[in-house]
Amino acid sequence: MMQGELSGEKVMVAEPEADILGKGYGRKKGGLELSLEEAGFLLETGKIEIKEQREQGEKKLNFKDFLKHALDISPKFGWRYIVYRDLRERGYAVQPGGVDFWLYPRGVKPGEKPAKYFIRILSERDLYPLKELDTLLILARNMRKEPIIAVVDEESDVTYYEVKEARFEFMELKKKKKEEKAQATLLGDKVILWDTNLAENLHRNDFYGKLTKEKRLLLSLVEAAYLMKKSLLEIEVIFEQFLDYASSIESDFMDKYAVYEDLREKGLIVKTGFKFGSHFRVYKARQQKHSLYLIHVLPEAHVFSMSELSRAIRLAHGVKKRMIFSFREKVGEGCIIRYVDVGRMKL
Amino acid sequence: MMQGELSGEKVMVAEPEADILGKGYGRKKGGLELSLEEAGFLLETGKIEIKEQREQGEKKLNFKDFLKHALDISPKFGWRYIVYRDLRERGYAVQPGGVDFWLYPRGVKPGEKPAKYFIRILSERDLYPLKELDTLLILARNMRKEPIIAVVDEESDVTYYEVKEARFEFMELKKKKKEEKAQATLLGDKVILWDTNLAENLHRNDFYGKLTKEKRLLLSLVEAAYLMKKSLLEIEVIFEQFLDYASSIESDFMDKYAVYEDLREKGLIVKTGFKFGSHFRVYKARQQKHSLYLIHVLPEAHVFSMSELSRAIRLAHGVKKRMIFSFREKVGEGCIIRYVDVGRMKL
Repeated sequence: MMQGELSGEKVMVAEPEADILGKGYGRKKGGLELSLEEAGFLLETGKIEIKEQREQGEKKLNFKDFLKHALDISPKFGWRYIVYRDLRERGYAVQPGGVDFWLYPRGVKPGEKPAKYFIRILSERDLYPLKELDTLLILARNMRKEPIIAVVDEESDVTYYEVKEARFEFMELKKKKKEEKAQATLLGDKVILWDTNLAENLHRNDFYGKLTKEKRLLLSLVEAAYLMKKSLLEIEVIFEQFLDYASSIESDFMDKYAVYEDLREKGLIVKTGFKFGSHFRVYKARQQKHSLYLIHVLPEAHVFSMSELSRAIRLAHGVKKRMIFSFREKVGEGCIIRYVDVGRMKL
Repeated sequence: MMQGELSGEKVMVAEPEADILGKGYGRKKGGLELSLEEAGFLLETGKIEIKEQREQGEKKLNFKDFLKHALDISPKFGWRYIVYRDLRERGYAVQPGGVDFWLYPRGVKPGEKPAKYFIRILSERDLYPLKELDTLLILARNMRKEPIIAVVDEESDVTYYEVKEARFEFMELKKKKKEEKAQATLLGDKVILWDTNLAENLHRNDFYGKLTKEKRLLLSLVEAAYLMKKSLLEIEVIFEQFLDYASSIESDFMDKYAVYEDLREKGLIVKTGFKFGSHFRVYKARQQKHSLYLIHVLPEAHVFSMSELSRAIRLAHGVKKRMIFSFREKVGEGCIIRYVDVGRMKL
């Protein structure tokens, strides 16, 4: 049986035994230095004995003693250990370090190839600011690794989420010949286009609004604003007045509109995602059968609960769409629109 | 063509023509009095002409004029009209009145049988307090009708939700012979039971906790608290101290625990619902393959956004479970635990 000696945040294994461990565990530092997660896993699976030097003399630790020690050092050890063990049992090489852990592709040992992912560990009870999702993406670019969030639930199960910049599949739209400007009426929170030909064109070609039996087109506020901006629609008030009006009805209108406009300008077709609990569902042009993305627009300062994230992503997954969180990021005087794609990951 | 005369919130149709309308529309009051929703629908579908007496003389109104008039009287007319029209087009008799509308079973005309449902109309942008869901249930009992929430989204589509008191299918559990009290250790946010036999029993028979490969049982805080209360588990601290400790880790612990205990006492099996974005998933005893309910515990003062409701219900529907919102209602000095079941309704 391999022998380790506990000392604070690490367990040292003497040189001759270090090789047995293979490359998957610890770091060479004279002997082999194991992190508490590594040592705990080897202890629980009966591959190591761990001793601690105490004033009363040497003490052999059982797993319970070891856990207490580790939790005294870090209250988050429980979650870290559950994730470490889960990944090991799935056959992955994983190393404590980086954001929380480094993860290697299946079958790869540390040293053979670099880690592919870094892992951020959270518990079901944590709150998680949208800006930290973004920080993960910045780290990912800098480190050239892919970020994974591992959430430990009440039942000690782990759910893995991949986080990436959204990449939209879209088609370049052909420049269209100048279309006729439609006259419409602002009524409450709808804009109604009365000309049946223009209504049909806008709806059939570009999927705007809802066409009634009488061939009137009911446009939502974001749709109307965008068509006004493109000089395809005219109502009683000018564009800026309309934006003010819409913002008075819907406090987050400008956030929603900015994202709507940006997506339309990318050649995507954007409809309400209400039935899926999100702001928008998004289609590729000319592939209007199934939407590909659900987009939820959030204020930059939004803080997620884990159940909120889990619910949104699980729903999107169930209907075979990508869940994308969008926000306006202040950059200097202006804003850029950001899209973060978070999905369940099967490891 | 039938002739109606607009006067404020109603349109009057003279007696001889009233019969043509059948029983589905308006109320007899000398002639026939139509609500604005009824009149608007008959006007838009070309079954009526509507005139208004103005100082300059009689004016015939087109649909646009009529809409403007109705929206001046009530800013919510737009949503009411969309729902009215949607239900009419689906072949239902519907009458403005009650909470918002009365709805009759398919094929039934008002007067033949009483209305079966009442409808509460909301827009995608509304906020909706949990307490108002409860108010709907109180109204439902008093009026002996079933409540429906109709939500009008950005796209002028309507989604219907049925609201009811949750009825749980459960099985009376047999009184068990006194079981041995298990010794466990509180470690961070887990309680670990080390005795492999007791661990296996608790897990296999009653689905408690997560059993590790080494046959240790990891119990969540609510599970441990309940087993302590049932005198099946003993840890370093007494029950009351444990509740305090758990509440310090998880601020809504007592709400969650109260619901957990109540469901277990009903003979149901309760596990975390994290993967579905809810607090609990609930199984019937001895039918542990698929959970039947998702339960999310909320503070009594919770206010829903419509997208939150929509997301939760759509997700539950997608995985063939009922979505149940639970809260503790203060009654006198004590509390009762309430379960409100909200589901999508195909009309």
